[in-house]
Amino acid sequence: MRLDVAYDGTDFAGWQYQPGLRTAQQELEDALSLLQGGRSLRTRSAGRTDAGVHARRQVADCELRTHLDDARLKHSLRCMLPPDLRAQALRTVDAGFHSRRDAVEKVYRYRVDSTSHGNPLLARYALHHPHRLDRQRLDEALRRLPGRRDWSGFTASSCVIGQRVRTLTRAEWREPEEGEGYFVFAADGFLTHMARNLVGTLLEIARGRMEPQRVEEILERGDRRLAGPTAPAHGLILWDVRYPNDVERAHRADASVRARGVP
Amino acid sequence: MRLDVAYDGTDFAGWQYQPGLRTAQQELEDALSLLQGGRSLRTRSAGRTDAGVHARRQVADCELRTHLDDARLKHSLRCMLPPDLRAQALRTVDAGFHSRRDAVEKVYRYRVDSTSHGNPLLARYALHHPHRLDRQRLDEALRRLPGRRDWSGFTASSCVIGQRVRTLTRAEWREPEEGEGYFVFAADGFLTHMARNLVGTLLEIARGRMEPQRVEEILERGDRRLAGPTAPAHGLILWDVRYPNDVERAHRADASVRARGVP
Repeated sequence: MRLDVAYDGTDFAGWQYQPGLRTAQQELEDALSLLQGGRSLRTRSAGRTDAGVHARRQVADCELRTHLDDARLKHSLRCMLPPDLRAQALRTVDAGFHSRRDAVEKVYRYRVDSTSHGNPLLARYALHHPHRLDRQRLDEALRRLPGRRDWSGFTASSCVIGQRVRTLTRAEWREPEEGEGYFVFAADGFLTHMARNLVGTLLEIARGRMEPQRVEEILERGDRRLAGPTAPAHGLILWDVRYPNDVERAHRADASVRARGVP
Repeated sequence: MRLDVAYDGTDFAGWQYQPGLRTAQQELEDALSLLQGGRSLRTRSAGRTDAGVHARRQVADCELRTHLDDARLKHSLRCMLPPDLRAQALRTVDAGFHSRRDAVEKVYRYRVDSTSHGNPLLARYALHHPHRLDRQRLDEALRRLPGRRDWSGFTASSCVIGQRVRTLTRAEWREPEEGEGYFVFAADGFLTHMARNLVGTLLEIARGRMEPQRVEEILERGDRRLAGPTAPAHGLILWDVRYPNDVERAHRADASVRARGVP
């Protein structure tokens, strides 16, 4: 069973199950377990998200023992999940499907409110960063990022993953409205705090407190201490997780959106 | 004194002062009154917004008796306002400035989440309307709207304004992400519930429950009963209020944004 879910991370202690805390995984598993008569179950997911991080599309999988068909399961699940966690899609997939291992691309967005006053309509979902961002410096730093690299310098010191080579395919800054911008990062995988550390460093560069070349130094030396602070969780959204079949579809959709002149 | 403010309308009983209720005008006046030693004062605004309607930019004016300069006033005001009401700008203007009478254009946006599951990240600021919207029908109805007309058919029966002729300059639908769209309306003025009644009717048309020609019938007959339901308040945002000096600037900005391929 594959599940695509979206959540507002504000009131979750992250995705992953932690005893005594409200997590998205726990809420999902509690609801699913009711649909197989109270038998407990475990879900796997494409990745963890930190406390406070949102998801527009997270993907999970589990083995569900039920006689209900997908349509009835979907309806029942929607009724049982809390308002800040929604099931977008639910479908029976090959038993071999593995939400993490089969994922080929993850996309994150990080929203920044750079107005001086702080837009109250963005407060839950964007970092308020009331500083002028130098677009040229930002672009210089961003174009140095994509590629297959060791991301140790942008990884939390607490990260337990040993193999830190990932391929970043996109690093962009967009500003559809004045003062309301966002970063887009796409990669075959992200390490602990990687997206937030990239943002923290890029904002220091855009403000003029670090040079754009700094990103190369951080990557080469693999030294977390050279990077900027970890940007707060609430600006980050797991935007999408893509699988082999999805990738082509998503690229087609991107192209049609671009053709219509919309970001 | 001219004040540009933004607010999250969720917890306000609208803009206008009402005894015993929390309104944006009251919160603003309470803060301003402290800055003139507790003397009470009255603000005027470009227009009222209903309970639950948000504002990205509302403009107010008032006469403030203080020796503080604009920069210090702005700083002090920011400290005193609640997180869901922010002062974007504050400046001394000609005594003749009148935020309502001098406004030449108001812009509203209405956000619609048309995903079947309901995106939890949009729940506070978009109507969840899980129905396929027929883009062609929508466009047919939208292009019938702009112009100088009597808007009685789209006005709340409770509206006390007698002269109901307004000039609508823009009526558009944009969908920057699949399932996340918004209407844009610009006019020299809006009547009670006018934007929300337009949305309620347009959504009925896009769903196939009314014909696009219906908007002409509503306008000609001026009969509110022919229109769709009033769309809920939480999807509506007072996006901007423009004054003679602003208008040209805003049009320049729009053109440059269009040139960059961003909505």
